[in-house]
Order: sequence, then structure tokens, then C-alpha cells
Amino acid sequence: MGGGATGGHALEPSERTALRRKKERGRSDWETVCAVLDEGLVCHVGFHDGTTPYVVPMAYARVDDTLYLHGAPANRTLRALADGAEACVTVTLLDGLVLARSAFHHSMNYRSVMLLGTAERVVDEAEQLAASRALLDHMAPGRSTDARLPSPSELRSTLIVRIPITEGSAKVRTGGPIDDDEDLSLPVWAGVVPLRTVADPPLSDEGLPDGVGVPDYAARYRRAAGERG
Amino acid sequence: MGGGATGGHALEPSERTALRRKKERGRSDWETVCAVLDEGLVCHVGFHDGTTPYVVPMAYARVDDTLYLHGAPANRTLRALADGAEACVTVTLLDGLVLARSAFHHSMNYRSVMLLGTAERVVDEAEQLAASRALLDHMAPGRSTDARLPSPSELRSTLIVRIPITEGSAKVRTGGPIDDDEDLSLPVWAGVVPLRTVADPPLSDEGLPDGVGVPDYAARYRRAAGERG
Repeated sequence: MGGGATGGHALEPSERTALRRKKERGRSDWETVCAVLDEGLVCHVGFHDGTTPYVVPMAYARVDDTLYLHGAPANRTLRALADGAEACVTVTLLDGLVLARSAFHHSMNYRSVMLLGTAERVVDEAEQLAASRALLDHMAPGRSTDARLPSPSELRSTLIVRIPITEGSAKVRTGGPIDDDEDLSLPVWAGVVPLRTVADPPLSDEGLPDGVGVPDYAARYRRAAGERG
Repeated sequence: MGGGATGGHALEPSERTALRRKKERGRSDWETVCAVLDEGLVCHVGFHDGTTPYVVPMAYARVDDTLYLHGAPANRTLRALADGAEACVTVTLLDGLVLARSAFHHSMNYRSVMLLGTAERVVDEAEQLAASRALLDHMAPGRSTDARLPSPSELRSTLIVRIPITEGSAKVRTGGPIDDDEDLSLPVWAGVVPLRTVADPPLSDEGLPDGVGVPDYAARYRRAAGERG
């Protein structure tokens, strides 16, 4: 788990991340940022290699005001980031479909965080281990006390980078459709279809030793705001 | 809905999108690309404004081999794309958490499509309307026959861009964890926690006229491969 949601600072919306439109959706307070980052499982990492923009899905974890990404040392995205390419990391949680009477006012309820920054390669072994634990517990809280932690040789075969959670913005849309007054009498259903991510019963791997049961975090996996400590 | 999943062509993995690693995850056949694009609800659009990379979540829809994005004319991302900025559009569906015995082999099951291309602004009114319908039906199949379609003035207040689905790649990971042989006897549970997106009962907007019921696509909303025609 990535540290508490308190004690942090608000994200500083810089000129390049300040919301230009729909300012009422801006919500860059620290609690919102942490809640989104801690609930999400996949971030989308953007960088530019000099000619082409790339957007790549990756796992991640937050520890206090630091975001960690990891992967193979040959991973192109991580190498670009470790080499100093500026990164944009976006996490989006889709909470619902907003069906308005008019096509024009259809929307989605969502919470998203966009971070800008430059990554640094994590070379300290203690921080590598802490990041590895955080990445496990981000997937399933408690997993780091069960799984075999990385060996020194596995750590050498992993590229971990750190991105500061300092510059960026959060956006949140909630609530129902907002139709124009003249459409309110149309015989068209309008409302919200709430969406969420659920887990189905876990599929145990073959060949588990006798007596190895399914841990609670897998048997009753939940991913919802406020439930991850 | 975005046209059939047949009759297309495979994505051409260019030098810049060809998978360099984990080639067994590459799956750029047309059916896979369409299945991912049609099941996803949010794409992450990346572009570079000359100094900074941005990754922005957006709704989208596919019609045959074209991807449509839309938003307000002042939307910074859409303006950059309409002005010729190269775009990377990535759609990721998370199917499960792969918990291995070793931290090192933890992974996720997912399906993703990454598209590269340059957008064009849609100016033809018939294409604007067709894209608007596709965007509605992508959210909820059938919605375009219920909602009030955009007026000419609403179309003028909407920026729609088109990106060809030609260059890019798809990646798919399925199956259980792949641990090292020497870890198989560890007393650690390993397996997959399957994840999926579900809808809760729809929340009807206030003030609907009498007799306007909840349509089936909202009352029994489902988002799963193969169920969207």
C-alpha cells in the first residue's frame, strides 16, 4: 500500500496542466489524487521518443508522493523514462455512463489523475525492495507478505523508475445528465449507468502444494475507494 | 456500433510499433483489434505539444477502420490533433491479476491496442452525424435510436476527429502465472483473480415524463466480448 492519503500536499497545477475548460471538474487536492492512484490498477504512460508519441499501459504503485513503474530492463518505455524523457502518467477510473436526452450532452462519470514529470531510475536496493513490495500490495493488499520477494539477481533484472507526484491535475465528473431545458419533456430515458470493476472467484494455479489455501485478498478481492486502508 | 469485425485488414506493425519483446503477446489481427476497441469505453490519447507529452482519457467509437474522437471545439487535445499533431491512442482492457509465487513473475492479464496516426477534422455533416451515432452506440448499443441526435448548431459546437486504424499493434496476455521451477514447491498461493467491468442498476434522471421506462441496454447493461453484435 502506498502510504496514507493524508500528510501530502495538493498537486500544483502548472500552466501546462491547469484545466482550461470545465474548471468545476478540477479536483487536485491530495486526497482525491491518492484515492484515484490507489484504486487504479493500470496507468497509461506517455512519452515522446523524438518523433513519435507513445501511450503504454503499465502497472504502478504509489508510495507517499512517489509513483513507481517497473518492468524488464529492455522495456522501451522504461528505458526512455530512465534516460530522461519527460513522462505523462494518467490513471482513469470509469464510474458510469451518463445518458442524456440529447446526444450532445452524453458524458461519462470518471475520476482521473494526470501527472507530468521526469523519472529517475531506482538504484538503491532498499528502495527497489520497498517499491517491489508496494507494487505487490497495490495489486492485492497483503500480497507482499506472501509472495517470495525478489532476489538480488531478480532486482538486477528489473528496471524500476520513480516519478514524483508533484505536477499534474485531477478531474472528477459525478452526477446525472445535464440536458437543455427544452429537451426535458422528450420521451427519452436519461440517467446514469454506474460501472465498477469486480473480481470473479480466483483461479488457483495447478500444482499448488497441499494445504495452500486461497488468501482472503484473492478470495474476496475488492477494488473500491476507501477499502484499501 | 462500429461496423463488423470482419472484412478488415490486419494492423501493419511498423518499425515503431513492432513488439520488441514478448512477441508471443503480439496479436494484431483485425478481429482482436476490433474486439478490444469495441469493448473498451475509454481510450488514452497521447500527443506532444512541442515541449510536453500529454495522455488524456477520452470516449471514442470505431466505424470500420476509423476511430472517432469528439469533444468541445476548445478541447486542447482535439485541437492539437486537428492541427496535425501525431497521436497515439491506446485502449486497455484489464482481465485479471496474475499472482505468482515470486514477486518477480507477478503480471496482469489484459488486452490492449495501441494506434499511431494523424487525425483529421471531420467537416462533412453526414459523417459528423454518423460519428455521433457511433459514439452513442459505442456507449450503449441502440442508444442512437433513442437519444435526440445533434442539431446543426450542436454539430458546429462539436469537434470530431477521425484517426485511421491502420498502424499499431495489439497485445494480449492470458493464462496463469509462470513461476520458476524452483519456486513451485513454495507454500504460496498462486493463481489469477479475474476482473471485469459490471454495471449496477441504472439511476433514472429526475423529471422523466410519465411512461418513459428504462431501456434494456441500460437496465441490463453488459460490456463483454462477443456480446455487442
